[in-house]
Amino acid sequence: MALTREDCARLDEADPLTHARRRFILPDGVNYLDGNSLGALPGGVAERVEAMVRQEWGIGLVRSWNTAGWYESPGRIGRKLAPLLGAAPHQVTVTDTISVNLFKLLVAAIRLRPGRRTIVAEQGNFPSDNHVVDSVARMHGMTVRYVPAGAVAAAVDDDTAVAELSHVSYRTAEIQDMAQVTAAVHARGGLAIWDLAHSTGAVALALDDSGADFAVGCGYKFLNGGPGAPSHVYVAQRHHAALDQPLTGWFGHAAPFKFEPGFARADGIRAMLCSTPQMLANTALEAALDAFDGIAMHDVQAKGRALGDLMIRLHDERLAPLGCDLATLRDGARRGNHVSITHAAGYQVMQALIGRGIIGDFRAPDVMRFGFGPLYVRHVDVWDAVLAVEDVLRSGAWQAVPLPGPDAVT
Amino acid sequence: MALTREDCARLDEADPLTHARRRFILPDGVNYLDGNSLGALPGGVAERVEAMVRQEWGIGLVRSWNTAGWYESPGRIGRKLAPLLGAAPHQVTVTDTISVNLFKLLVAAIRLRPGRRTIVAEQGNFPSDNHVVDSVARMHGMTVRYVPAGAVAAAVDDDTAVAELSHVSYRTAEIQDMAQVTAAVHARGGLAIWDLAHSTGAVALALDDSGADFAVGCGYKFLNGGPGAPSHVYVAQRHHAALDQPLTGWFGHAAPFKFEPGFARADGIRAMLCSTPQMLANTALEAALDAFDGIAMHDVQAKGRALGDLMIRLHDERLAPLGCDLATLRDGARRGNHVSITHAAGYQVMQALIGRGIIGDFRAPDVMRFGFGPLYVRHVDVWDAVLAVEDVLRSGAWQAVPLPGPDAVT
Repeated sequence: MALTREDCARLDEADPLTHARRRFILPDGVNYLDGNSLGALPGGVAERVEAMVRQEWGIGLVRSWNTAGWYESPGRIGRKLAPLLGAAPHQVTVTDTISVNLFKLLVAAIRLRPGRRTIVAEQGNFPSDNHVVDSVARMHGMTVRYVPAGAVAAAVDDDTAVAELSHVSYRTAEIQDMAQVTAAVHARGGLAIWDLAHSTGAVALALDDSGADFAVGCGYKFLNGGPGAPSHVYVAQRHHAALDQPLTGWFGHAAPFKFEPGFARADGIRAMLCSTPQMLANTALEAALDAFDGIAMHDVQAKGRALGDLMIRLHDERLAPLGCDLATLRDGARRGNHVSITHAAGYQVMQALIGRGIIGDFRAPDVMRFGFGPLYVRHVDVWDAVLAVEDVLRSGAWQAVPLPGPDAVT
Repeated sequence: MALTREDCARLDEADPLTHARRRFILPDGVNYLDGNSLGALPGGVAERVEAMVRQEWGIGLVRSWNTAGWYESPGRIGRKLAPLLGAAPHQVTVTDTISVNLFKLLVAAIRLRPGRRTIVAEQGNFPSDNHVVDSVARMHGMTVRYVPAGAVAAAVDDDTAVAELSHVSYRTAEIQDMAQVTAAVHARGGLAIWDLAHSTGAVALALDDSGADFAVGCGYKFLNGGPGAPSHVYVAQRHHAALDQPLTGWFGHAAPFKFEPGFARADGIRAMLCSTPQMLANTALEAALDAFDGIAMHDVQAKGRALGDLMIRLHDERLAPLGCDLATLRDGARRGNHVSITHAAGYQVMQALIGRGIIGDFRAPDVMRFGFGPLYVRHVDVWDAVLAVEDVLRSGAWQAVPLPGPDAVT
């Protein structure tokens, strides 16, 4: 029997995370399925940022580096975030951006494996990861072997210094087995760097138990830290003593206020820092993490899986006959918190949806991507989105949308 | 005849920048002479940030990358800032931090001068500049020749790829002659990178007319952009076509939303970008720059010079007999907007001043640094600060201040 909207509403009533939606400020008339691009605004963030600007900056002025705890902010946010990563807290900090942190980690990993000349990286990974891999390889005269994520473990050999891949694919949402891949890399003497951009805050993670060496993640997707929120970075404790990353700024110095000419690396995870943190952004991210208070990450992953399963079922029932296809895995156990649906007119369909307040995103050439911020997206939202796609396609409403120019920002 | 406070008040009345102080929100009971470390809060910034968080992020959500102009924010802020640098607007953008941008520029400069094996850098420069120079030299197997700023021009030879130095010294406040040094570097076929950390917003700059190749500057000092505000970067137009920097993130890609595997560098200054900008920080900086509306930079430099001359005169009259000495230049034409006064008990004296609401900063081992945010510091503030130093020294009040621990954040 076909599902109804009432069925979806009943699923929402039974959902253990239903209460978490009230932790967010969501605009009227919007069905937001793009939290995998920019997470929604958690309640309390605006107030916290305003207090930081008016009181800590305006009144406290430079004194607030000490008195308001700004100086300790990167590590403090890292410790708050660590449980979401399945990591002991002293291994996580918040700084810079994913690409900058990936650059640091790749160089640091190569220095830990001198003599090895190959990087194994994921073919089809989010492009900027591979741009950074290429840049680091060029600077070190190394070779990059690109293979699909599922083939990384087998591609590593005794010449591999480091393997870099995404834990959850930005396109297919496929989850890689972190423990298995890492073990395979280690078996050949290499190191593994995991990109958690579509993982942190979306799926259960166990970095310590998986034996991960290094990881980078994103603050502005499922963590809801605000546009361009700083990235987080994980370094397993066993690598702290020899950590040698190339962006040697004063926040990564052991004694930044001694103003000595030589660089003395800070102990522990602080060695991943470079310059003065952008404190407005740090403040928003720190406050945003309160939305995860008391929330179990296995509930979060289960919620995203349920929403994805629902969208796939509705896709099969209603959209597949209209020329849509699925670009994400059907197997919910191996799928992250988004569903990608392809259609030849995907760009136009998505624009028509956005015009109706149903916000997903489009990834060239033909992917409509719907992300499920597990703390605030409901089953009825998925229902409404699929029925809107069906209506846009059946009615031909998408044909009224102009195609993008060659340099469009989509 | 010795100066009086009334003399200083008359100087303030005659000051063409007196009105600009009303553009800032300054706390009661504070005499703020540390704008060279963290600029004061300009009026309107808190409101702008709050609107950005509540409206653009909260209501606009991911759509605001287009509709609120977030995507164009780095270049837009760069264009707003360019007049303060004496630069045509398409050569300036805002991104990342000084150390990260310096890393990008050093590598880009080395790639523009293949075969040359030496970097000339400033001995005694702000330490993290030299940490980054050392890191880049190590990655490229190059030699660094450290010489005092005044000797950089003479130290450049035919093996020099790039020279890097500060335009205004963080310690002595000495201004280097940008045109002269750059010409000397160019005469030997090298390139010059200028650190403007203590220049932008403090002294008149003429990057284009000086023939500068590259520059990096700071958003949180004299630009008042907020703690950790993003850095700005200048690349002369003649280097745009061949610009090849190593932090190849998606915001520096010619077509970031095409998701193509290869890196295609964006045209122009946008090639200096890396990842998604931290928009809360960008928003604060953009709003803060309104404080410079209609203000001529030669007035700003003249104001800072007048305040510095005043402090030096009062130092000579009142502090030199008490064991103080001057660590900045007496020549106002070659001095930036701060004055450094040394005293053996400098750390304790500065802590005692801060306890009285007179805020400067301390730089090891013995430097008390007083910065003159030219838009809000008055002549009477300088008077009050010097008389407080005199009182702290004469009364012995500094002796009640404990010495810092070995890892103190000062």
